[in-house]
Amino acid sequence: MKNKIGKQTFVFRNKPVITGECAVVGTKEGQGPLKEYFDTILEDDTYGENTWEKAESRMMENSIMTAIRKAGLEKKNIEVMLTGDLLNQLMSSSFSARDIGVPFIGLYGACSTMTLSMLMSSIIVDGEFAENVVCAASSHYCTAERQFRMPLEHGNQKPPSAQWTATASGAAVISKNPCKSNETLIPIPKEIFITHGTVGKIIDTGMKDSNQMGAAMVPAAVDTILNHFEDTGRTPDDYDIILTGDLGYIGKEIALDLFADAGLNMKKMHLCYDDCGTMLYYRESEDVHGGGSGCGCSASVFTGYLFKKMRAGIFNRALIVSTGAMLSTISPFQGESIPGIAHAIAIETS
Amino acid sequence: MKNKIGKQTFVFRNKPVITGECAVVGTKEGQGPLKEYFDTILEDDTYGENTWEKAESRMMENSIMTAIRKAGLEKKNIEVMLTGDLLNQLMSSSFSARDIGVPFIGLYGACSTMTLSMLMSSIIVDGEFAENVVCAASSHYCTAERQFRMPLEHGNQKPPSAQWTATASGAAVISKNPCKSNETLIPIPKEIFITHGTVGKIIDTGMKDSNQMGAAMVPAAVDTILNHFEDTGRTPDDYDIILTGDLGYIGKEIALDLFADAGLNMKKMHLCYDDCGTMLYYRESEDVHGGGSGCGCSASVFTGYLFKKMRAGIFNRALIVSTGAMLSTISPFQGESIPGIAHAIAIETS
Repeated sequence: MKNKIGKQTFVFRNKPVITGECAVVGTKEGQGPLKEYFDTILEDDTYGENTWEKAESRMMENSIMTAIRKAGLEKKNIEVMLTGDLLNQLMSSSFSARDIGVPFIGLYGACSTMTLSMLMSSIIVDGEFAENVVCAASSHYCTAERQFRMPLEHGNQKPPSAQWTATASGAAVISKNPCKSNETLIPIPKEIFITHGTVGKIIDTGMKDSNQMGAAMVPAAVDTILNHFEDTGRTPDDYDIILTGDLGYIGKEIALDLFADAGLNMKKMHLCYDDCGTMLYYRESEDVHGGGSGCGCSASVFTGYLFKKMRAGIFNRALIVSTGAMLSTISPFQGESIPGIAHAIAIETS
Repeated sequence: MKNKIGKQTFVFRNKPVITGECAVVGTKEGQGPLKEYFDTILEDDTYGENTWEKAESRMMENSIMTAIRKAGLEKKNIEVMLTGDLLNQLMSSSFSARDIGVPFIGLYGACSTMTLSMLMSSIIVDGEFAENVVCAASSHYCTAERQFRMPLEHGNQKPPSAQWTATASGAAVISKNPCKSNETLIPIPKEIFITHGTVGKIIDTGMKDSNQMGAAMVPAAVDTILNHFEDTGRTPDDYDIILTGDLGYIGKEIALDLFADAGLNMKKMHLCYDDCGTMLYYRESEDVHGGGSGCGCSASVFTGYLFKKMRAGIFNRALIVSTGAMLSTISPFQGESIPGIAHAIAIETS
């Protein structure tokens, strides 16, 4: 096919452009090393709402509306929104889609949602089905804890390997034509184009410990990255930065081992590779156990930190890989292991 | 944009083809009026598995693998699978994707999933990103009851307006090129092409009764259908059959009222319009309260009944509209109303 190379990679020949982006994060994330990069830091993780779920939904809505504004567009210019989150029945996405009121496609990829939604959005724009679409992903520590672990009031303890669900939402507008908005272009002149998308397979190596999700997702992340290199003929040398999200501290170490096993140029990998789950918090002072996770983790690191760095010319070509653990709240009780998945997007500046 | 008309409708100019399809249904569905059309009827709704969730996952896997075989293809020819179900964290989809092992995109649209997955698949094929993709949706009465209502053992009673979640899975292979398989083509010669897809908006009219989901979804279904007509310039006269799924008995009556209010040709609508939720069971003898629902309801009626009728030349042009109620298991307790959504696909035979 014209727009497919290798086994798993789509080529976006019309190079869809990221015309606007926004990262909204919670209080803890707003005290981390990337705090200067985020558009909005909540003063209070309830965001003025009376439930955590409504707070998360409002975070997503805010990130979407800001991304649209920064793209120099209005809601009426957005033809489709593609969003997802961790909540059952995509609660944050559905309710923010209700309030925003544009045609809506719901995606579920656990923490892999940000690159999944960017990938599907790029297909729609590149295939000339829409001029402007918006994609987003969110998570909230308090909604995720009570859904996947225990209500906060329970004061549950977690093992050091457990990851910390980020309270964050990231959104990006993906367009056919470059941005005309002064807000994004001045004083930051670079445009970001999406050139490739690699769709991941489910990889399950039999890991059953849901407090070891980074380790459970690593094989999928590495598989997708290696397939991306094979399909495109690229190597780590072609990228200024390769970011996975959210393998955390343990997962990142395993990933580096697996990259070495696969024969990648490790000198380069040690320079260019990092994981969003290790970037969002101060490891020592913020006590996030295994590192950050949740759809919002990679979503906010990409839209907050990375895209700003790219617009400023610090990085020119990036491979971004959100990773998801597709276990359910029931499956571990039924003796199932954790299916991992990862989707990759290659982006570059003009 | 080249492949968009009006506000919400994509045009598939390369006309992706449905090359294979399969419907697997449960015991109750296998006693209904459409029983002759289904590929597989379970002898026992456990499907030989020790949990309902594994049974549902196996149903989805079986429907996908059969659809691939009927398309004259093998697993290795399928470039992406796009599936969804009602279970938290897309349990059936994730575990069947793990077993099938092809690149996987997870979708959540509640009961609107079948047309959503066909729509996204058509974009991928029409945009020349893949030659063959498979899409599917499933639901299971016993998994849905315990997740959304009460465990079966509780013997919970439901009001007459509550709908009955179908135990069913439907899958379709969507391809660039017509099918070469003898199994599908002989003795049934017609090919089915996908020509348009209309992405729905969330419509929420404030309905809060989760035992009235048909009524909650009707406004979204009618909105999508009217937008489809406006975008394409088509009318009910252009279709031999228009199927929504799954508004049920109450929802279908309301839909007809709203179609009349909108000024559609009701003589034609009474002839061509029906709802999958009213077609899957015998209303009197099977005691399904408000009618069928669940992703598997429209998925199995489309892939089992409709596509067979189209291949046999009984219907030449159809508009199919899966409808979803995007409420969560938490949102009603937080005072939220039910967001509805519906996505439409126009299909026609050669």
